[in-house]
Formats: sequence, C-alpha cells, structure tokens
Amino acid sequence: MSSLGFYDGKIVDINSPAVLLEDRGYQFGDGVYEVIVSCRGKYLALKEHLDRLERSCRELSIITSYSRAEVEDFCHLLLKESQMDDAMLYIQWTRGAAPRSHSYPTNTRSILSATIHPRKELAAELIENGVKALILPDERWLRCDIKSLNLLANILAKQKAMEAGCFEALLVRDGKIITEGASSNCFCVKKGIIYTAPASNLILAGITRAIVIKLAEKLGFTVKQEFVSLEFYLQADEVFLTGTTTEVMPVIQLDEMSVGGGKPGPVTRELQEAYFSKIDET
Amino acid sequence: MSSLGFYDGKIVDINSPAVLLEDRGYQFGDGVYEVIVSCRGKYLALKEHLDRLERSCRELSIITSYSRAEVEDFCHLLLKESQMDDAMLYIQWTRGAAPRSHSYPTNTRSILSATIHPRKELAAELIENGVKALILPDERWLRCDIKSLNLLANILAKQKAMEAGCFEALLVRDGKIITEGASSNCFCVKKGIIYTAPASNLILAGITRAIVIKLAEKLGFTVKQEFVSLEFYLQADEVFLTGTTTEVMPVIQLDEMSVGGGKPGPVTRELQEAYFSKIDET
Repeated sequence: MSSLGFYDGKIVDINSPAVLLEDRGYQFGDGVYEVIVSCRGKYLALKEHLDRLERSCRELSIITSYSRAEVEDFCHLLLKESQMDDAMLYIQWTRGAAPRSHSYPTNTRSILSATIHPRKELAAELIENGVKALILPDERWLRCDIKSLNLLANILAKQKAMEAGCFEALLVRDGKIITEGASSNCFCVKKGIIYTAPASNLILAGITRAIVIKLAEKLGFTVKQEFVSLEFYLQADEVFLTGTTTEVMPVIQLDEMSVGGGKPGPVTRELQEAYFSKIDET
Repeated sequence: MSSLGFYDGKIVDINSPAVLLEDRGYQFGDGVYEVIVSCRGKYLALKEHLDRLERSCRELSIITSYSRAEVEDFCHLLLKESQMDDAMLYIQWTRGAAPRSHSYPTNTRSILSATIHPRKELAAELIENGVKALILPDERWLRCDIKSLNLLANILAKQKAMEAGCFEALLVRDGKIITEGASSNCFCVKKGIIYTAPASNLILAGITRAIVIKLAEKLGFTVKQEFVSLEFYLQADEVFLTGTTTEVMPVIQLDEMSVGGGKPGPVTRELQEAYFSKIDET
C-alpha cells in the first residue's frame, strides 16, 4: 500500500520531479481537477466526477489528450497499483506547457496528472457532535462553477477558519448571501424546509450536494435551491456541510453563535444516515 | 544565447521535468510571480519587482527559502548564463510541495523557480498606431493586488480579446468602474487630466504604472488616481495601457467605438517618449 503519482499516462514516484516549469498549471493555475474517494476498493460517483471534469475542461477550452475511457482506465489502474481499498484520488488536467503568454497556446498537449493517497477518515467525534464554521466574505472570482486550480481565495478562507479553531469557512457574497463553504457546499434547515444555494456561477455544485438533495427529496423533504442571507443561516434550526471528503457534516456554531442549540439536528441526522447507507450499498 | 530554466537554486533545462506533482503551485496556484525585462544586459526596475514579489509572499504568508540577496544573485546569474542582453525573466515563489490540503502545510520548503527567454519586441506598428481593446466584465477575485498565480480570469479575458482581434481586454467591475487590463494597467486622458484606477484590492498596481505616473507629474500633468466609469473612458480624449512588456501603448478603439479620433493622442505620445528616454538612460 503506497501513495502514487501519475503523469501523462504513466505511474510515477510521487516525490520525483515530473512537471515542466512552463506547464500552464504551474504558472497560471490553468487547469481543472477532481477529488474522488474509494470505499472498499470502489470509487464513489466516478461517473459524476469524470463528467464534471470534462465539463470543466470544456468551460476552459482545454482539449483533453486522452479519451474518457482511457481516463477511467487510469483511475482504476491507480487504485489497483496502490493496493488501497479506501483511497483518495486527486486528478487534474492542465492546458500543458508552452512559453508563458496569457492567451491560449496552440499545439500544446494537455497534461493529465494524478496522485493517490490513503483516504483519511473524518474523526467520528466531528460527524457525531458537529463542527464550528467561521463566517467570511466570499472573495472568489465569478466562475466558481468551474472546478479550477485557482484556489487561493479558498485556501485563504480555509486557513483563517483553521486558525480560528473552525472546521470550515462559510462565505458571504457582497455582504448579502451565503454561497458555500471554502471546500464544501452548505445547507440550512428552517421549519422543516432545506435550503441551499442554487447551481450558478457563484458556487461549485458538489456531487455530494446533488446526492444529498436527491436523498432528501426521496425522504419527503422540500429542498429549496435558492440564495438566503447570513441572518437566515443564523436563525436556522440546523446547518450542515456536504462534500466528497466532508460527507454530511453538522455545523453547530457560526462564528460565536450556536446553531440549533449547539447540537446536530434531526434532519441532518436523517440525511447523514441516508448518505452513509447509500455509500454502504455502493 | 538560450532560454533557461531555474528550480530551487539550480539552473535547469527548461524542457526537463523539475516540479513535484504536489507542489501547491501546481494544485492550487498557491504562489506569486514577477516578470522582469532586461535591456542591454541590465534589468529594468529589478528592485521594485523584487520588493513587490516579497510583498506578495507576505500577503500569502509564504516564507521564502532564499534571502533577498540570494534571489537577486539568481536573477543576475540567469541573465549572465543566458548570454542575452534583452531578456524576459519570469520568476515565481510557490508554497512548496505537501500532500494536498487547503490549509497551509507546516514544514514545507517554498520553491523559487524561474525561466528566462529572449525579450520579444513589441511591433513598432502597434506602438506607433495604437491598438484595439475589448470591454469585458471583471470576473476576478477581490485580491487583485496580490500578483498571484491565480490567473484564469485574466487568461479568459485575454483570450476573448485576442479572438476579437484586440490587443487587450479592459475590465469593468460590477458594471460600474474600469479597473485595468487583463495583463496591463489602463489610463485615460480627458481635458488634459490623466485618470487611472487607484492602488487597491481591485487592481495590480503595476511598476510601469508607477513610473508613468511619476513621469507625467514631472511633465506637469495632473494625475487623478480614482475609479471612473466605462462611459468616462468612451468619452475620453485618449486611452493608453502600461505594463512591463506592454510599455506605454496607445488604445485607439474600445469595442467598436474609436477613441480620440482613432489616433494616439499628444499626452500618450509625450509619455511614450518620456518612458522610452527613461529606459534608454537606465
């Protein structure tokens, strides 16, 4: 069992130089990515992740140098060669290497690279008791719908959250609406209705978000995909996060204000159970 | 005379693998950079560029693994080894390599890398007759003052400009104010007064911008560093761009509207002359 690297069709040592200095991923963040986890030797939502990866490439006019079937094969090869059951695969496309110039180069070969590591389990204590979130201004660009390598705003928010002893930062756009977390989507529950920001240029519509919305509707909940204010979140009965590695995570405190009496609420619990059951069935 | 690469203290082949897959520059755009040109064997404004590079590092809490004096020595070494007189140096710091996680890793060595290429001269025809610019919404994040590797919004704007047969894109924030170009600062002239966006989180305050403001004031012009609207630009007598590689470039058309009768104006000409004289003196 070992962490592995992958670069342009070949498995490589994760700690050996692989990337060219003028790869546009390295000079411009000119690329897109996915994080995919495996559970007992099987990837979760692989199709959905690779669909979104292709969509991100299209949005940036990155012409992929391997077919979808080849990319899928690489994902499976990495999991097999790593000899891990519970792994975290990181996979990215960049536009490739060319002498630096803002506009797209021609005749450049796009580069597929990846890493695979053992999957880190979330602490049971967090899943059970919930986490704190810090409220911060959303300073990101206006194409958050593209899962791109331009992640500095997310990094800065996440770092501030960590330094404040919080698990995540919830982002407020223009002082008005909650968009999402720095590396997760967020939901709130009020009078039995579930709210989350709509898929738009202001959020990265997560795959776990979509799964949880489906599960909620199947359980009979009304899910409103609309923007709501920070005040709305502060007065909500429950708040929770979703994400590939975040799963379904209760939020029990926003800044210094407790949410739902400081305990995970019944809707969050029901959705956690439904989500974990779904994973177990996979 | 040859293009060279540089990675963590050593000159390397620009076309050989040098960078680790998990360098945060490659996975998050977690780094900062400068572009510095040399003229007849001497860098222009090297001190100002390295000052700004240090400031960018500070803003992102990137702890540099070489001293300022060492970085300067590397810059000079690259110019010498390249055997070029007129070169374009690209230099960047990234936070370094660590297993992927949004928040800052600890104990990671920041990576200094660079490339040096022959400097491309701007076409004399453009400097003489001016260029067209496309007007686009400013979709960038809210920390444009950090010269970071998160450049996708700039790339997308520049690409659209190129595809529309334009030299540059001028960016309009929130439909209200002109901020700057996709890879340059912009100025307009109205009734003899020069306007440019103030140094703030909404622009990257260029080094050429600062030089040109100083030159203009020395020549007796009033320079107002304030935000003005697109309408103001459309009714201006002159518009021009500044930048390390853009120098002082007249803009004679904004979208389909001609500026100043479609010819570079007298203030732009005076500043071009002053700027080129200053470079010649260097």
